[in-house]
Amino acid sequence: MFNFQCDYTEGAHKNIIDALVKTNMEQTSGYGVDAYCESAKAKIKAACSAPDADVHFLVGGTQTNTTVISSVLRPYQGAVCAAEGHIAVHETGAIEATGHKVLPLPCENGKITASQVKNYIAGHYASETAEHEVQPGMVYISFPTECGTIYSKDELRAIHAVCKEYDIPLFVDGARLGYGLADPRCDLTLAEFAANCDIFYIGGTKCGALFGEAVVIMNKKYAKDFRYCIKRHGGMFAKGRLLGIQFDTLFTDDLYFNITRAAVESALRIRKAFEKKGVSFFGDSMTNQQFPILTDAQIEYLSKNSLPEFWCNAENGKKVVRFCTSWATQKEAVDTLVSDIENM
Amino acid sequence: MFNFQCDYTEGAHKNIIDALVKTNMEQTSGYGVDAYCESAKAKIKAACSAPDADVHFLVGGTQTNTTVISSVLRPYQGAVCAAEGHIAVHETGAIEATGHKVLPLPCENGKITASQVKNYIAGHYASETAEHEVQPGMVYISFPTECGTIYSKDELRAIHAVCKEYDIPLFVDGARLGYGLADPRCDLTLAEFAANCDIFYIGGTKCGALFGEAVVIMNKKYAKDFRYCIKRHGGMFAKGRLLGIQFDTLFTDDLYFNITRAAVESALRIRKAFEKKGVSFFGDSMTNQQFPILTDAQIEYLSKNSLPEFWCNAENGKKVVRFCTSWATQKEAVDTLVSDIENM
Amino acid sequence: MFNFQCDYTEGAHKNIIDALVKTNMEQTSGYGVDAYCESAKAKIKAACSAPDADVHFLVGGTQTNTTVISSVLRPYQGAVCAAEGHIAVHETGAIEATGHKVLPLPCENGKITASQVKNYIAGHYASETAEHEVQPGMVYISFPTECGTIYSKDELRAIHAVCKEYDIPLFVDGARLGYGLADPRCDLTLAEFAANCDIFYIGGTKCGALFGEAVVIMNKKYAKDFRYCIKRHGGMFAKGRLLGIQFDTLFTDDLYFNITRAAVESALRIRKAFEKKGVSFFGDSMTNQQFPILTDAQIEYLSKNSLPEFWCNAENGKKVVRFCTSWATQKEAVDTLVSDIENM
Amino acid sequence: MFNFQCDYTEGAHKNIIDALVKTNMEQTSGYGVDAYCESAKAKIKAACSAPDADVHFLVGGTQTNTTVISSVLRPYQGAVCAAEGHIAVHETGAIEATGHKVLPLPCENGKITASQVKNYIAGHYASETAEHEVQPGMVYISFPTECGTIYSKDELRAIHAVCKEYDIPLFVDGARLGYGLADPRCDLTLAEFAANCDIFYIGGTKCGALFGEAVVIMNKKYAKDFRYCIKRHGGMFAKGRLLGIQFDTLFTDDLYFNITRAAVESALRIRKAFEKKGVSFFGDSMTNQQFPILTDAQIEYLSKNSLPEFWCNAENGKKVVRFCTSWATQKEAVDTLVSDIENM
Repeated sequence: MFNFQCDYTEGAHKNIIDALVKTNMEQTSGYGVDAYCESAKAKIKAACSAPDADVHFLVGGTQTNTTVISSVLRPYQGAVCAAEGHIAVHETGAIEATGHKVLPLPCENGKITASQVKNYIAGHYASETAEHEVQPGMVYISFPTECGTIYSKDELRAIHAVCKEYDIPLFVDGARLGYGLADPRCDLTLAEFAANCDIFYIGGTKCGALFGEAVVIMNKKYAKDFRYCIKRHGGMFAKGRLLGIQFDTLFTDDLYFNITRAAVESALRIRKAFEKKGVSFFGDSMTNQQFPILTDAQIEYLSKNSLPEFWCNAENGKKVVRFCTSWATQKEAVDTLVSDIENM
Repeated sequence: MFNFQCDYTEGAHKNIIDALVKTNMEQTSGYGVDAYCESAKAKIKAACSAPDADVHFLVGGTQTNTTVISSVLRPYQGAVCAAEGHIAVHETGAIEATGHKVLPLPCENGKITASQVKNYIAGHYASETAEHEVQPGMVYISFPTECGTIYSKDELRAIHAVCKEYDIPLFVDGARLGYGLADPRCDLTLAEFAANCDIFYIGGTKCGALFGEAVVIMNKKYAKDFRYCIKRHGGMFAKGRLLGIQFDTLFTDDLYFNITRAAVESALRIRKAFEKKGVSFFGDSMTNQQFPILTDAQIEYLSKNSLPEFWCNAENGKKVVRFCTSWATQKEAVDTLVSDIENM
Repeated sequence: MFNFQCDYTEGAHKNIIDALVKTNMEQTSGYGVDAYCESAKAKIKAACSAPDADVHFLVGGTQTNTTVISSVLRPYQGAVCAAEGHIAVHETGAIEATGHKVLPLPCENGKITASQVKNYIAGHYASETAEHEVQPGMVYISFPTECGTIYSKDELRAIHAVCKEYDIPLFVDGARLGYGLADPRCDLTLAEFAANCDIFYIGGTKCGALFGEAVVIMNKKYAKDFRYCIKRHGGMFAKGRLLGIQFDTLFTDDLYFNITRAAVESALRIRKAFEKKGVSFFGDSMTNQQFPILTDAQIEYLSKNSLPEFWCNAENGKKVVRFCTSWATQKEAVDTLVSDIENM
Repeated sequence: MFNFQCDYTEGAHKNIIDALVKTNMEQTSGYGVDAYCESAKAKIKAACSAPDADVHFLVGGTQTNTTVISSVLRPYQGAVCAAEGHIAVHETGAIEATGHKVLPLPCENGKITASQVKNYIAGHYASETAEHEVQPGMVYISFPTECGTIYSKDELRAIHAVCKEYDIPLFVDGARLGYGLADPRCDLTLAEFAANCDIFYIGGTKCGALFGEAVVIMNKKYAKDFRYCIKRHGGMFAKGRLLGIQFDTLFTDDLYFNITRAAVESALRIRKAFEKKGVSFFGDSMTNQQFPILTDAQIEYLSKNSLPEFWCNAENGKKVVRFCTSWATQKEAVDTLVSDIENM
């Protein structure tokens, strides 16, 4: 049975495991100030063409979102985001736990637009009762979004321009960043992407690492005392070098890009197989998550070998399910699924 | 050069690394509901003679303290603890970040007593302005304490009795629990220890794991919805099985107990060497942390091979330093240090 | 010029002012434990037919909502409410400041239904990812709602039944409670209303007092240590007797009911005048707030003597405006407005 | 029986009551943007010789402290204060409720010194584990302190200089400011006092008003969006003009200064009477609070006419009690007490 339910079912890429094994009995300082973290930071900054950026390593996504968001907002400010954004839906109030309201905007395909953001913020300041409402203090988007779509260079730039106009940061949740950059329609390099964010993170957990997210602070204005924020949120990892080693490995010889590109290629093979059968899709993902709309019979048929995740109900009794590929997806698994699709 | 500065300088015990390597490409569900977590929980409950306990796995100590403390307190309550307790000093306000005041009591050798706790709580309720002060809502102690000392069975029982009298939980921070139980003066088994706590955690990070802490909720009253609390604090680890595998390994064939006992034996060899030279100690630790009081010349001499951590200044220009052993300490390192002590 | 923009433009009812003047130089204890507070509490409990209720006095509405909500929720829980509910919109994140998410449901005429609430909560517990979302921990409604509508006895009872089913409290924001009970269609007495809430508050600020809200805790389960919560939220009013005196006066000789009924009668005179002119209304308020849909010319004409508040845009270039009456509204003001409406 | 237990046993000064009665049926805008607030602000700025200051009115002291402190600190920062400071002891964790640790320093006579503050802050930044501890982000002092003492011009200036050195604000809790300025040893005018603070508040509740505290933000850096902070903390008073009217009255014809000076004169008459009897004092207050050290017999004797508050136990079975005078203290009350002291 092949599990396509999510992109964190396995451990870590072989190179990472090898590096952890090899360095296991070395003695290093704790809390992320060791040589492996330094090396990883240097490689990430190089990959982002951002020599002046600050890079920090955290363990998981919710922790990263919470730490970054509470670090950049003033107490009465909230985070503007898509209604389907991860922080709006799936973090058990972790953002509110830091005292901040999430300000969701209606979204299409998981995305919000610069003009939506602009109208929302302008509307706030135009209101006579602005002080009675939460002030929009940042914009949060996901790249790719929770439903696998991406922002184009122009879209990202336009949102960033609105942020600059109001002097608030644009923070991009890159839990699946590698898969987004590997979308064949993506017109952004990592460096171009980075240049249009104030802060973002490079997801490791879903992209080849055992765990770990690399926060990149592009705008120095938001860099001050970030390590205090990490510690306050329980994110100062004792054996910090474990994060350094993993990201150092991912950013050696383009491993991060290669493994995520391969995952997207697998996803698109699956997509094509569904398309051939006339299956339509929920949303418009060209990344590692595919959301075909299937009948119960089709789902049952495919599930004999390949496990998808139920996503939501669709019209006519059909269901949207999610097939995720990842850095760990085996050719055999994709071959089997594609073959089953052809025969379903 | 051997580093004795802390007990988290290396990776993980070989058995854990082997298990992680072996299981790396298996596919499991996320968030701690996999078979490895189930197995680890069963073994921990058995080791605690607590079949009805709830066990949860978190990544690090600050996160664990924050999650547990904010889970059991009502908003206007605080955590009574030793003034030198980790939550009072070294967590960048992580407890206050959840809205709760830390209520430190003066401590000796890192410990507080049942009568201190009793007097403090009784004093609160006797005050006419009780409502203007933070209500003591739990007791937090560390076992062993931050300076390596432990509570006896009677001392622990007495503190627990006060907690029961006021219907508040006793939470024990066991970041170094294994080292405490291995103290030759310890008169508590893990099961006896567990029976005298409402909640405690078994530290993995400092006791053989790459990372991870196992929270054991002995008192069902505090168990409800704990997973929501974990998620809200960013502690719901995506690849939960990594925690399960590590604790499953630690609680197989008494590995946890064996490796921490060996570390304490090493520490006591070092202690004995210092004692032979007439060196006196800060505090009274018989666990893996030793705090000799040395002259600058002695520190310099030892530092040619063995790195201690500066702890605090002592009288007559001397200094307290800390030598930590751990599950990873090599015989060669201890031999070298002991020999250097003999010759210093 | 008569100001109809809101119901807190004047000071307090003459009887209250007289009582404050008369008692001004008396010496009493602080923080709400004086004889005036005791007397007021007794009268409120009698008016609610709730001899066992707990009554507490706070200064304002946001403070009251924040204190009550954070008192009854566990950290990972949120408050289910109407999307137009005051806590969802107009409190600058005061609820989120206590760590809790507001969980808005779509509403009609400002109201939510028992079946909506039931579906929402049942949906939460049915979700496989429930632990990744905020748990619904209470229901908050306003009576009357922000747009002047009220719940019938059956509607209130049905919502309360859902709350009981899930063992969560129903909290009713009664900032304008008197005006709601005075709605000619209201089929609830104060006692019947109280019997169907777990906690509610009787608004003073908008109903005859200088300031002050009386929290009534009907369900003992939520009463423990409430004064700690008040103090923690900065709501422990030093000269507590000022609140006691005001509510004691309001609940003497039915003053609270008489003055709010008179205000609603004035509002309905204004409504009738608009109806006669064929004007239609936004929503369906029969309380002290009226929301006629007018042309710019009509608004301008009326504004020569009577100031309404802009509410929102309507179709065909028309606007919704709000005319509020209150305990302080003078007959002359209503006569003038009605006459202007007839001539507009 | 005369009550000397605290300085908030009565209502408000006659001029304030008269002004409230006179303006009662006027209609004004809510939330503190009315003409009375404007006038009061202008008078306060004039009294402080601070035309550029921002002035805001809040209802009570805890609310004010919470709002100001959470407004100026970043999340990982805490407030340095005296161990006996009000925020450290008597606010039921209201500061911690906003996520911030209170950082108490040992104090003498309720006061801390510039060198203490300097050493503490310098020590923080010198620590290798600074990031693991709460960063000192502001200094909070009370003027007068909780035990009636005051800071001299030099002392205040020196503390302010340390704050400037570290670019953090000095916030002064002036709940009893008028009584402090009336201390015969005080070498500060209100304007000189103001010039040496970044933010402070002028207490109304204990100094002639029914309630209300006027926050004065001297340093523009901390002024941005303060009204959002007020609203978020439930402090945006609906009938804001009630605060404006009260402070406008207090700052008309030096009423604030005159009534607090008279209260201090009464307190010093009482002090002198005790001194004549050879009674010694706890602390060194020359303001409206006096803390004689008495035998049980003496306390009982005085209590037949005059009620003091128990403060704490002293040596030899004696007790410290507090006698408070206020703007409302009658000559007859002081005469009676002085006569009783003479005869005790």
